[in-house]
Amino acid sequence: MFYVTRRETFSAAHRLFNPKFSDEENEKIYGKCSNPNWHGHNYTLEIVVAGDINPETGYVIDLKVLKQIIIDNIIKKVDHKNLNVETDFMIGKIPTAENIAVAIWEQLVNKIPRGKLYSVKIYETENNYFEFKGD
Amino acid sequence: MFYVTRRETFSAAHRLFNPKFSDEENEKIYGKCSNPNWHGHNYTLEIVVAGDINPETGYVIDLKVLKQIIIDNIIKKVDHKNLNVETDFMIGKIPTAENIAVAIWEQLVNKIPRGKLYSVKIYETENNYFEFKGD
Amino acid sequence: MFYVTRRETFSAAHRLFNPKFSDEENEKIYGKCSNPNWHGHNYTLEIVVAGDINPETGYVIDLKVLKQIIIDNIIKKVDHKNLNVETDFMIGKIPTAENIAVAIWEQLVNKIPRGKLYSVKIYETENNYFEFKGD
Amino acid sequence: MFYVTRRETFSAAHRLFNPKFSDEENEKIYGKCSNPNWHGHNYTLEIVVAGDINPETGYVIDLKVLKQIIIDNIIKKVDHKNLNVETDFMIGKIPTAENIAVAIWEQLVNKIPRGKLYSVKIYETENNYFEFKGD
Amino acid sequence: MFYVTRRETFSAAHRLFNPKFSDEENEKIYGKCSNPNWHGHNYTLEIVVAGDINPETGYVIDLKVLKQIIIDNIIKKVDHKNLNVETDFMIGKIPTAENIAVAIWEQLVNKIPRGKLYSVKIYETENNYFEFKGD
Amino acid sequence: MFYVTRRETFSAAHRLFNPKFSDEENEKIYGKCSNPNWHGHNYTLEIVVAGDINPETGYVIDLKVLKQIIIDNIIKKVDHKNLNVETDFMIGKIPTAENIAVAIWEQLVNKIPRGKLYSVKIYETENNYFEFKGD
Repeated sequence: MFYVTRRETFSAAHRLFNPKFSDEENEKIYGKCSNPNWHGHNYTLEIVVAGDINPETGYVIDLKVLKQIIIDNIIKKVDHKNLNVETDFMIGKIPTAENIAVAIWEQLVNKIPRGKLYSVKIYETENNYFEFKGD
Repeated sequence: MFYVTRRETFSAAHRLFNPKFSDEENEKIYGKCSNPNWHGHNYTLEIVVAGDINPETGYVIDLKVLKQIIIDNIIKKVDHKNLNVETDFMIGKIPTAENIAVAIWEQLVNKIPRGKLYSVKIYETENNYFEFKGD
Repeated sequence: MFYVTRRETFSAAHRLFNPKFSDEENEKIYGKCSNPNWHGHNYTLEIVVAGDINPETGYVIDLKVLKQIIIDNIIKKVDHKNLNVETDFMIGKIPTAENIAVAIWEQLVNKIPRGKLYSVKIYETENNYFEFKGD
Repeated sequence: MFYVTRRETFSAAHRLFNPKFSDEENEKIYGKCSNPNWHGHNYTLEIVVAGDINPETGYVIDLKVLKQIIIDNIIKKVDHKNLNVETDFMIGKIPTAENIAVAIWEQLVNKIPRGKLYSVKIYETENNYFEFKGD
Repeated sequence: MFYVTRRETFSAAHRLFNPKFSDEENEKIYGKCSNPNWHGHNYTLEIVVAGDINPETGYVIDLKVLKQIIIDNIIKKVDHKNLNVETDFMIGKIPTAENIAVAIWEQLVNKIPRGKLYSVKIYETENNYFEFKGD
Repeated sequence: MFYVTRRETFSAAHRLFNPKFSDEENEKIYGKCSNPNWHGHNYTLEIVVAGDINPETGYVIDLKVLKQIIIDNIIKKVDHKNLNVETDFMIGKIPTAENIAVAIWEQLVNKIPRGKLYSVKIYETENNYFEFKGD
């Protein structure tokens, strides 16, 4: 088994907020991350594909192809966007890094042309990382 | 002459927009950075103080003191905030990294207890850096 | 399964030395790391918690909470300390990065309020990393 | 189970090219990576060894020893070399990062004096990573 | 005075070799960097422009514009190329990082639409950096 | 004018302490950095040499030569050492990063075979940097 990773970055605004909670509860749970005026991050995204090496090409998957799939399906929808109100696959979800990673997994899992999606990793800051490997 | 640097980070939302311009002009000049729904960044801030070494302490300036000055005067006003509408020293200014750096300079220049402010450097992304050294 | 990581750093002194070995043996095994006058490192610590996402909050675990647990149980005992003689959970152990990682695991494994401890990773230098995932 | 990692770097030239393909096919598959005049990279290599901790030393494996094994068996053969024409263990192979990782695995797997080789990870650029964990 | 920096990366092959020197002299001066079979690097390029802030836009120079200038004039000519034989502005020059930096300066100095070129910085490896600020 | 930089790293123990001060004063000024049981850091050192490019070689200074000078004169005396009691050029000095940088400057300033020493930069942690450019 071989694992190949493509790293991409994007910058977005978001706010952590559960409409089922009161303002006090949101403030208590999310603190400054719940600021109604938004805040934002430079997110780093690492997409890992697992597969065997194609002996004809020496590739598991052409990373130029993987890059384009990530850009078309993810980056165009999140970069310089507001994740809460503009990103179709995040509408109605609390945009924690965990939920973003799961949603990105769902967007990509059926679009990998060779091998299979193994992991979605997101760095929200240099100190906080999140990884989803499917169920 | 000796130069000491303290690095801090903050995450904020912003939008590049000049109210004197039409929407089309703002879009033309700022592109996706002008998104009305905001976007955001993990900013890295480097504050450089120049001075001589105090022979008694071996310090130009105690970096614990400099850190607290940066937190009290800058980080508390920008971290997890919307720079356009919440940060007092950015109200009415276009929050380009250039203008943020100049405003941070103005906030700090008279508050350095030893040596003098030499440079304010901001990394907006891993590819775009900005440095202001005063006039 | 979801994995969330919190990164913290600390600076400490240590010396590699097994009192059961002669000085010559310690020198032969540990080389310059056995210097009786100590040396030190900036350690980077990554604590990984595995769990499912709480649908109410979108969190596996609140990283502000995890951060505080790491600071209270680990960082306060190791930062700017001598690991051989001052850190209670290292007394009587050879402070290799491996043994530090196992000891940190033992300190944290029963203190994670949601999900469970999955991995303790330590970077001793930019070239040497160590990871413990429990037994 | 414990995992220890040693990081090394090397700089090399290579060209992606399958002699069974026509020039057009090579250009179509590999694009600019197929340039007949070569190009090159600063590769970062991470070698992970898994094992238990030796209670006498506190080491899984002495990283000074692992470093020397990597230098003698890999770095001397790839650093400032042309991987296609000079590196004995790559001759006749397409030097994709995937194939390089597998070849490095084969070079090292029987030379680890304590524990066993767990993973070979190569960073070809800051955006493209590759990991092989054996079959 | 304000300084803005745009970072770009490229991967290239090269060889250090002065045709006026004998093979022995080239080997003595350049060592493994003189390998006739080439080697290569991931170069990191930082272009710094100095100028005042345009009060209308808040920009010294639009970094999207600067990025495109760097790509069109430099990156397209060096990325995945052999600097000795393919890069027009390096033909006949010894491609040390110093000479590359000077040549990039000459390519860019008259093409900066606002402010002026202040510095060209190249990282050849993580340990070796080079900066040219003009004469 | 051209600037070339060589980066090296070392790990050392130290303690900030002025024997002219009382224990209370040392504790007040240096806080946890004054711990009598020592602490330590992974220091990163950047040595910058300024000069013109030798047209024969394309080098300002051969970085292999500069590297060896740094290793022989600095790294061998500080790596895995106690800066307060073992490093000859620090004996009797308070080992703040400022004083270390000045002492390294003095060690190197007359040993640069081509060009001249321009700057000594030390990173004590990822957040605290120090630069000395001579008087």
